[in-house]
Amino acid sequence: MLTIDINCDCGESYGAFQVGDDDGILPFVSSANVACGGHAGDPMVMRRTVRRCRDLGVAVGAHPSYPDLYGFGRRVLPLTPDEIEAWVLTQIGSLAAIARSEKVELRHVKPHGALYNVAARDLTVAMAIARAVAAFSRELALVGLAGSLLITAGHEVGVPVLAEAFADRTYEADGTLRNRHHPDALIIDPAACLAQTLHIIRDGAVRAVDGTLVPLQAATICIHGDTPGAALRAATIRQGLAAAGITVQAPQR
Amino acid sequence: MLTIDINCDCGESYGAFQVGDDDGILPFVSSANVACGGHAGDPMVMRRTVRRCRDLGVAVGAHPSYPDLYGFGRRVLPLTPDEIEAWVLTQIGSLAAIARSEKVELRHVKPHGALYNVAARDLTVAMAIARAVAAFSRELALVGLAGSLLITAGHEVGVPVLAEAFADRTYEADGTLRNRHHPDALIIDPAACLAQTLHIIRDGAVRAVDGTLVPLQAATICIHGDTPGAALRAATIRQGLAAAGITVQAPQR
Amino acid sequence: MLTIDINCDCGESYGAFQVGDDDGILPFVSSANVACGGHAGDPMVMRRTVRRCRDLGVAVGAHPSYPDLYGFGRRVLPLTPDEIEAWVLTQIGSLAAIARSEKVELRHVKPHGALYNVAARDLTVAMAIARAVAAFSRELALVGLAGSLLITAGHEVGVPVLAEAFADRTYEADGTLRNRHHPDALIIDPAACLAQTLHIIRDGAVRAVDGTLVPLQAATICIHGDTPGAALRAATIRQGLAAAGITVQAPQR
Amino acid sequence: MLTIDINCDCGESYGAFQVGDDDGILPFVSSANVACGGHAGDPMVMRRTVRRCRDLGVAVGAHPSYPDLYGFGRRVLPLTPDEIEAWVLTQIGSLAAIARSEKVELRHVKPHGALYNVAARDLTVAMAIARAVAAFSRELALVGLAGSLLITAGHEVGVPVLAEAFADRTYEADGTLRNRHHPDALIIDPAACLAQTLHIIRDGAVRAVDGTLVPLQAATICIHGDTPGAALRAATIRQGLAAAGITVQAPQR
Repeated sequence: MLTIDINCDCGESYGAFQVGDDDGILPFVSSANVACGGHAGDPMVMRRTVRRCRDLGVAVGAHPSYPDLYGFGRRVLPLTPDEIEAWVLTQIGSLAAIARSEKVELRHVKPHGALYNVAARDLTVAMAIARAVAAFSRELALVGLAGSLLITAGHEVGVPVLAEAFADRTYEADGTLRNRHHPDALIIDPAACLAQTLHIIRDGAVRAVDGTLVPLQAATICIHGDTPGAALRAATIRQGLAAAGITVQAPQR
Repeated sequence: MLTIDINCDCGESYGAFQVGDDDGILPFVSSANVACGGHAGDPMVMRRTVRRCRDLGVAVGAHPSYPDLYGFGRRVLPLTPDEIEAWVLTQIGSLAAIARSEKVELRHVKPHGALYNVAARDLTVAMAIARAVAAFSRELALVGLAGSLLITAGHEVGVPVLAEAFADRTYEADGTLRNRHHPDALIIDPAACLAQTLHIIRDGAVRAVDGTLVPLQAATICIHGDTPGAALRAATIRQGLAAAGITVQAPQR
Repeated sequence: MLTIDINCDCGESYGAFQVGDDDGILPFVSSANVACGGHAGDPMVMRRTVRRCRDLGVAVGAHPSYPDLYGFGRRVLPLTPDEIEAWVLTQIGSLAAIARSEKVELRHVKPHGALYNVAARDLTVAMAIARAVAAFSRELALVGLAGSLLITAGHEVGVPVLAEAFADRTYEADGTLRNRHHPDALIIDPAACLAQTLHIIRDGAVRAVDGTLVPLQAATICIHGDTPGAALRAATIRQGLAAAGITVQAPQR
Repeated sequence: MLTIDINCDCGESYGAFQVGDDDGILPFVSSANVACGGHAGDPMVMRRTVRRCRDLGVAVGAHPSYPDLYGFGRRVLPLTPDEIEAWVLTQIGSLAAIARSEKVELRHVKPHGALYNVAARDLTVAMAIARAVAAFSRELALVGLAGSLLITAGHEVGVPVLAEAFADRTYEADGTLRNRHHPDALIIDPAACLAQTLHIIRDGAVRAVDGTLVPLQAATICIHGDTPGAALRAATIRQGLAAAGITVQAPQR
């Protein structure tokens, strides 16, 4: 029987600033990447989010970022690898402490935004992140773009890795994500998201925008929660996977 | 044979802003309270400080604060007990993650500045801090002013407590610290600091500014590192304790 | 012919964090209170907001706050009057510089959130704000709760003052706003908001929640933009005032 | 008779974090570049610094920076020219408001750290800064490295420009400053600083590290205040200029 993990980013509010529709999307995922103070996520938001995940049976992971509240972690900041390692460590530690106080154990780490993108193509940055994860716990899984250098780095330091694919993003022929500047970078139609998800799970491949068939082995599928219609797409995917006899669950240790 | 712990605050720099003389005072203490992002202490400063402590054999603890870089943790901020608990948890977690990556285990938690003072007299705040410590680890000791409500809170939640006295601060007849606004709040003379320290250790008492003899049971003695002459006072105390046959060491588990 | 100013708060986003429905409400007001970095409002948001106001012919004023992004200016921070004066000055100056670069001149200053509330009842804080306004420009009007100490302070330092009433908030018998904790603190019904507005303008009075008739002289009426249905309420009030032959315009110098 | 302006950076403290020896160096300069919230300089520090300058008869200018307290403005942040313009505007405006409340008028703007360096070689960034200065006031002088693109940009937008040379930094043959990574980048010896200063003023030239004679027309000479011995160097230069019959004064309008 086929099994897959579905993940989403969440807990990206800060103080009175509300971001995303966590209540709408969390019921449909098996893993959640919780912001931990870098681009969003103050301690109260972290705790509220961890509790929601726990109550829904969703696995909790850290979603560390460049320290950049103003830029929401979408800017590449000039940090040295040593600085990246230290900032990622403190963000994991912040969330882990909140999680522990709620009797929840962190299961994975997925870098956010610009840090995720840089780590996919820059091995020095990827290794800094991987070292932080391994230093915190060798049982913590590192989530990175399927086929990227972050996956390589995870293998290198010896932590579990989870190759990630996207349900609602289009791909280039080389396996990279199509840049958001293109109007067809996002997949809006719920049925198309489900189709791409099924294609990845069953066939280990995705159809690129130019028609190329790209091989893609993914252990976890990301659904974005900060775009209109996210909850509907998530529900559609979840229901479609159930109908196809595919089990949605967080990776087992 | 008598034994005592000597502690100091450290790691209170932030980015390019340098605070304190950590190199001057750390060689003379057995425990260090390391700032963890609330009032000071970015991840790089935390790591540098943890390494120094480890190399010197100094026990490392967290020094959480109201989240207040601008006010350096010296202002009482309007946080609810729930917020205090969550902010303290994330600060402990941040430092613990850095420490773990350096093969160092946190040994204690001592609140900083205004949070320390409020926790001494407000049981609701004291309990919030104590709950954070207990949730993180029941082996982590909570450091608070001897005879204060923070000590009570530590007992209440069931974590080890360390009652603290001060080598370089004067006392009121009721056992509280003399307010810094008074010119005689600080003890500058190294010999006088040593004398007060010995008095506390040997006799379990301190002489208040009005001459009253105040009973005071302390497991740890604090030396301030951010005042001129701090290193000399620390060296004098350390040497004087050695001459008196008193062992200086962090509390053993 | 009767004339009134209608104002709203706006520009309260920060970086990627979006707050309020400025586009929905700005077309219906004559004056806008623009966040200027204290509780929200980075320089890009300020510029975008000033441009919108200018294009709509809406008068621009500063909306300074306790420096508190995390608390969105809703917390009373322990600042001295000197600090309040200096922080208010820099916020007015920030927005004034952006406005000047857009050929817009600031017309008024209205404190935000907790600062507005404290200034209504604490003359020391009110005077600190008023001194900041007067030091910046004696032609800048100070907006404060009708009948409050902030109005007194404005008169005292010799700047124009604009007494403010609220279209969508209920009142107590003593002329203060009903605390938001009460379920009837907000007036949701657009027709009721219009009725209260007309009552204030025509009769110089408002009906308190206990039925008391409270005299209330207001030069400007505030509409909140951050509550659901705000744009509809604003449109209803604006249309109702036009139907009643009342001119809506910013105060003329 | 020869006349020159001597400038220094100051007001670079933040909250409890103390930076530089403003009291030591301000008595010897004619112009001060005051941090205005980007890399340092909270409103209280700004006000204290403006008062000191006023009391000493030192001309006050703004010292805007990339918004980067953690990096102290020494990192190149990924801001668009539009963002740079807006952030520089708000920083000038902040300081101008404080200065106005102290009856002081801003005389110049000198970018700080990484922003100064980037503006010297990147015309897009230089123009963004120059536009901000011109939008604020066409009487405000723009200070930039002699011969750099920031000077070009100032001319382009039509504000007064002040070409700057350094008393305590060595030069490359192409007129750029020697990188601080080199041990001979700083001139420590007070007499050597004075000699270089006199050389620049009298001969319009400086001797580069490789012996080349570099033509250099400067209207203002910078002395750094954050290095040990700064006050002594400043005093030596000031006395030497007096002995040489050279008047030290801020540029007259």
